[in-house]
Amino acid sequence: MRFIYLALASFLSLLSAGSHASETSIADVSNSLNSTWVVLAGVLVFFMQAGFALVESGMSRAKNAVNVIMKNYMDVCVCSVIFWALGYGLMFGINTSGWFGSSHFLPADLSDWDWTFLFFQMMFAATATTIASGAMAERVQFHAYLIGACIIAGFIYPLFGSWAWGSIYDGEGWLKAMGFVDFAGSTVVHSLGGWVALAAVIILGPRLGRFSHSGEARRIPGHNLTMVALGGFVLWFGWFGFNAGSTVEANSSIGKIALNTHLAACCGALGYMLVSKLFKQAILLTGTVNGSLGGLVGITAGCATMEPFFAMLTGVIAGGISFLGPKLLASFKIDDVVDAVSVHGFCGAWGTLAAGLFYAGDLFNLTRISVQALGIGVAFVWGFGIAYCAYFLIDKLVGMRASSLHEQRGLDFTEHAEIGYPEFQDTRAINQEALNAQR
Amino acid sequence: MRFIYLALASFLSLLSAGSHASETSIADVSNSLNSTWVVLAGVLVFFMQAGFALVESGMSRAKNAVNVIMKNYMDVCVCSVIFWALGYGLMFGINTSGWFGSSHFLPADLSDWDWTFLFFQMMFAATATTIASGAMAERVQFHAYLIGACIIAGFIYPLFGSWAWGSIYDGEGWLKAMGFVDFAGSTVVHSLGGWVALAAVIILGPRLGRFSHSGEARRIPGHNLTMVALGGFVLWFGWFGFNAGSTVEANSSIGKIALNTHLAACCGALGYMLVSKLFKQAILLTGTVNGSLGGLVGITAGCATMEPFFAMLTGVIAGGISFLGPKLLASFKIDDVVDAVSVHGFCGAWGTLAAGLFYAGDLFNLTRISVQALGIGVAFVWGFGIAYCAYFLIDKLVGMRASSLHEQRGLDFTEHAEIGYPEFQDTRAINQEALNAQR
Amino acid sequence: MRFIYLALASFLSLLSAGSHASETSIADVSNSLNSTWVVLAGVLVFFMQAGFALVESGMSRAKNAVNVIMKNYMDVCVCSVIFWALGYGLMFGINTSGWFGSSHFLPADLSDWDWTFLFFQMMFAATATTIASGAMAERVQFHAYLIGACIIAGFIYPLFGSWAWGSIYDGEGWLKAMGFVDFAGSTVVHSLGGWVALAAVIILGPRLGRFSHSGEARRIPGHNLTMVALGGFVLWFGWFGFNAGSTVEANSSIGKIALNTHLAACCGALGYMLVSKLFKQAILLTGTVNGSLGGLVGITAGCATMEPFFAMLTGVIAGGISFLGPKLLASFKIDDVVDAVSVHGFCGAWGTLAAGLFYAGDLFNLTRISVQALGIGVAFVWGFGIAYCAYFLIDKLVGMRASSLHEQRGLDFTEHAEIGYPEFQDTRAINQEALNAQR
Repeated sequence: MRFIYLALASFLSLLSAGSHASETSIADVSNSLNSTWVVLAGVLVFFMQAGFALVESGMSRAKNAVNVIMKNYMDVCVCSVIFWALGYGLMFGINTSGWFGSSHFLPADLSDWDWTFLFFQMMFAATATTIASGAMAERVQFHAYLIGACIIAGFIYPLFGSWAWGSIYDGEGWLKAMGFVDFAGSTVVHSLGGWVALAAVIILGPRLGRFSHSGEARRIPGHNLTMVALGGFVLWFGWFGFNAGSTVEANSSIGKIALNTHLAACCGALGYMLVSKLFKQAILLTGTVNGSLGGLVGITAGCATMEPFFAMLTGVIAGGISFLGPKLLASFKIDDVVDAVSVHGFCGAWGTLAAGLFYAGDLFNLTRISVQALGIGVAFVWGFGIAYCAYFLIDKLVGMRASSLHEQRGLDFTEHAEIGYPEFQDTRAINQEALNAQR
Repeated sequence: MRFIYLALASFLSLLSAGSHASETSIADVSNSLNSTWVVLAGVLVFFMQAGFALVESGMSRAKNAVNVIMKNYMDVCVCSVIFWALGYGLMFGINTSGWFGSSHFLPADLSDWDWTFLFFQMMFAATATTIASGAMAERVQFHAYLIGACIIAGFIYPLFGSWAWGSIYDGEGWLKAMGFVDFAGSTVVHSLGGWVALAAVIILGPRLGRFSHSGEARRIPGHNLTMVALGGFVLWFGWFGFNAGSTVEANSSIGKIALNTHLAACCGALGYMLVSKLFKQAILLTGTVNGSLGGLVGITAGCATMEPFFAMLTGVIAGGISFLGPKLLASFKIDDVVDAVSVHGFCGAWGTLAAGLFYAGDLFNLTRISVQALGIGVAFVWGFGIAYCAYFLIDKLVGMRASSLHEQRGLDFTEHAEIGYPEFQDTRAINQEALNAQR
Repeated sequence: MRFIYLALASFLSLLSAGSHASETSIADVSNSLNSTWVVLAGVLVFFMQAGFALVESGMSRAKNAVNVIMKNYMDVCVCSVIFWALGYGLMFGINTSGWFGSSHFLPADLSDWDWTFLFFQMMFAATATTIASGAMAERVQFHAYLIGACIIAGFIYPLFGSWAWGSIYDGEGWLKAMGFVDFAGSTVVHSLGGWVALAAVIILGPRLGRFSHSGEARRIPGHNLTMVALGGFVLWFGWFGFNAGSTVEANSSIGKIALNTHLAACCGALGYMLVSKLFKQAILLTGTVNGSLGGLVGITAGCATMEPFFAMLTGVIAGGISFLGPKLLASFKIDDVVDAVSVHGFCGAWGTLAAGLFYAGDLFNLTRISVQALGIGVAFVWGFGIAYCAYFLIDKLVGMRASSLHEQRGLDFTEHAEIGYPEFQDTRAINQEALNAQR
């Protein structure tokens, strides 16, 4: 009997060892899969920078094409380093107060998983920062812009992020604790970026000639619309990583998230087309691209908690907003070159509300809607307020706006001594325009 | 003894519970992995739209650059919604007759996996639809084009798809039941799209000036060949998702599928070059890009069932076809702006045949080849026939062709009130050309 | 007792069968995951070709835009086939001597995994080959270039690769055996490609007008800088597959590798900016893009064995090198259109050294540094030496350099009978320039 008992005992231990080994293996594969997914999603989010660059440069005039792209190219570089040094700790570090993270600055010895997470989040910070760049195009000084970018990536964005998404270590942001839903960042990334853009363009003022003396808006067409459309496709492509990657793990829900994302983008463009027809206006390529981007921004908050039908509805309305927003801003003589305030700010706010309204299995829950509304409002007050102060200071200290001469000559020539298309641009015309401005 | 028996019994149950838990975990990871793969593959297929847009717009004249891209941009939007509403059910719904799916219309409560599958298939429907757009470029009315796109995505494509690929729920398409092999859609997507394009361009007629009065073809060069090459790279890039993703699960065969896809594309370009040299003609960039795309279309049917050597052979021949096809069509005074009929129609038919000829381990099986030939023929009769009727009706009801004045002025200006490159295009010339046409 | 023994025995066998089944499943999922990761990484590396094409074409003049892109497009095609036929066996085949692989030529029946591996490595071979193309732009004959590309992909690259990375079957390359660290190919791919480029441009000589009679360098601006920036983004995007995919398996270290890659790229651009400011020069877009590419090249060797802080340091220095290198080469009247020798050659050498200097947990180990230095030196001697001989022979046999007339007219017209932007380029000017050259 004792022998049998011993046999069973040893057998049990052998078994548990075996099953332990087997469990470890599954965990390993699962970790590797999660890394694969999150890295690839982060890579897709990175590529959105190319999309922003194309859309923003294409919507600007040729004489500023290089400058606009340089702003995008450099803000990824600057912001990534700043976010590593400062933003990550502020946003995801230990957050006992609920108001800011306070650990993991200048991180040097994170776990493999945390490095992966930092990589993914770094791309989000770069996205949040770059939103404002298009709005400010064609008239902002390069170094002033970069100072602003550092403040967004190192302070404005991560602090708000710590309220809504922090911490991954200990503690919880106060907005998150209240049940605020913003899955992939309609508010945290997009509308925050939009409000920063709003502050920036108010400080900067409109481009020369954008509004007539009587206050009428004049259209300043972008120099390369095929580039704009390509940028739209690239952003859309990258957005699948942005939204579905925000699971921050590979699971079977990502297909539905990707589908919601896609349908909302489609319906954003259709919504723009519909409203444009309603107003008896031509269907512009720039408007269509912005409509789909509006749909993407709109679904970003609720992509994981909405049924596809509501994703489409969210998209259609966002598309309409992307049509109406620019008209509203123009009536205030606000000049937003790429309509970033409308597409990211307004559509982001709408999307955050929609995530509350259309929460699957709990539609139109008033408490939820109130929390969403609170988050939207806080983002506006924080994003617009701090950014306004920051840009005001930058303006006083180093000057935000390029000189009229430089603006007319084009910032490519004056800031970078390089021209986008030297064989196709009439450099004499650029100089003549500049001479005329001097008189 | 009884004690031992009980101990063993309880132990067994514990064990089976344990192994059950462990199996569940593996299934979870496996499901997550499949979702990851299929979502990413779908995202790559989505990006092919950007490739189509670049190739088609680049091969058109600058005055139609916006219009061509808008057709691509909008057909993704329209088709995705239509395919969700109607096409998915027709193609993959319960198919007891073998002739059409009859469930899952306007799907609202699919499983996670089915949403993922719908996402992936939606991108295929958009691809099938967009093939025709390039052929029709520079002369089709925008709204007429969109109506046609709806019919392709909602009816022509999913119905044929239900014969060859349906159903995932119950029943089986009649072509599939006969053993028709079209792994990723040389016929289901590409040659079907090509035949639709053929019908469209016959109804539309050639562009003004494409053929001289004596019937000689005149070359109308595209406005941006670097854009065409970029589009070729983007399509090639996305095609890896198209072909290797058609496993609709992550398994270790995808490497070979990707390799076959790549080698066929390479050999498509080389095949074009060879035949072009044989005919003592210059090696064009547009021809090279189309050669590689022909190779990609050609390998799409057999990429999972062919050895790499035969993939290369398939590609070389497809490249040759992409050279000869346009000459054949031109001799019939058929004007296909991007040679979509040759690249997708002819090469797709060849690829479907090649999948039969070069089936691994069963080369040159006559039965298999006959079934493939049947599928190819059915696709032509169905695709060309129905599309011809559809476009004929659209032409009678709303008019397919833009007016001569609009065609000369360029559709960007007349359909969208926007010009692709306002600083580089001589708008006076556009107007003058239009005035001359009025006289 | 015997009964119990039998019961236990049968139970044990049942158990081992069960656990065997379960282990098999984990292995299956793990294999599928590895395939998924390596295929997707390979697809990203493929897309780098588009990045090279954009950067190189954008930095050339419009009259050579098609030719430059055609070189990129065709070398993927030619090299992939050559690498399948010859290179793979030389590089990864059985390598008992340590000096070359000698099996697996024209592979036909590899395992699923080996096909996957071949797919991934084929993309690396194409990358190594394409590096030289940009340097030679605007003056090399198309067919001479392609002959050179075959020699790189079929001989120069795989042979060096067999020393540093071979074999996956049996035997070990001699450099690998010495402990040479080059994780993803700062030397194997990039500096080797850079030294080949150096040999090529020395044989070719500078473009007409690049240096004045007194030897002063004249800037020849590229025709499309937004395309250059897009190419930079695309290369950066693809590089994540290049570096993180070089694990050749999905594991949790890929996040850190991706992060190192990203931070080094960012710091490369910042390093360029810094040094440029130091030299009181304007911050060029072309320089910024090359700075980030220099950072990427630099981190390629050590991305898996460096802490993020050192990745940044590596990047900053690489960015500085990308600024200084071109000045050095220009002082020798060497004309490298895209600065490939600096970005890939010099930065690759630096990165390989940095991988030794900053090896995690073993900083500044002299033995390691010596081995790295040896590898760097061997790569230079081999790459430059053999390529010089090869191009010298090609030059004697078929002629490397296009005629002055062709160079002035532009290679698009003379080699391909196609012009990149026919509506925007003044073809009369091209002809006039050519006529003047004839006089």
